[in-house]
Amino acid sequence: MDVKNVTDLRKFSPEKLAKVSLFESEKMFCDVYGLSEGQEQKAHAHAEADKLYYVVEGVGIFKVGGELREVGAANVVYVPAGVEHAVKNDGTGKLTLLVFMAPHPKHGPKS
Amino acid sequence: MDVKNVTDLRKFSPEKLAKVSLFESEKMFCDVYGLSEGQEQKAHAHAEADKLYYVVEGVGIFKVGGELREVGAANVVYVPAGVEHAVKNDGTGKLTLLVFMAPHPKHGPKS
Repeated sequence: MDVKNVTDLRKFSPEKLAKVSLFESEKMFCDVYGLSEGQEQKAHAHAEADKLYYVVEGVGIFKVGGELREVGAANVVYVPAGVEHAVKNDGTGKLTLLVFMAPHPKHGPKS
Repeated sequence: MDVKNVTDLRKFSPEKLAKVSLFESEKMFCDVYGLSEGQEQKAHAHAEADKLYYVVEGVGIFKVGGELREVGAANVVYVPAGVEHAVKNDGTGKLTLLVFMAPHPKHGPKS
């Protein structure tokens, strides 16, 4: 059985957001992002793929479609395909995000 | 911005597993399942969709492709399309699962 522990596998880097791939297929991927204080994922969009962020721990400043919101643990943020989005750890402490994307952009027509 | 809180929105029913839809599109869906002690999702498969379970709290007995495993909080279980799977709350306390499926079986060719 394919089981992976988010707390054990997440990483943090002093330089930038650290991404760890948990699972992927042509249908989707599931990553864990570790953001240390001040780190961010800059604004970008995926033309063909929906994205979900689940905040495992910490607080993120999310920007989706031009709207800013502070989002804490146990919340899910939905980013529909084509919508620009960004996230920053602007607080104190680590930010761990479980990220789902469908379909996998590498396998789709473009993203 | 479309943000939903898993802890606030999850439900538990005395009769059976309670499902709450958080987000859905033709590309995927994201639900929260609440399983009280002794409740289960019986063995089934989705012919065309991959499924992921993230254990938010509690312990689940997962069965995937004939293999049984006890899985606790902060773990992700991957169920590839076509593989039979089931989950039971066989412990003490509530079991909350974040469930992600891609593509959405209602929109796919069959599942």
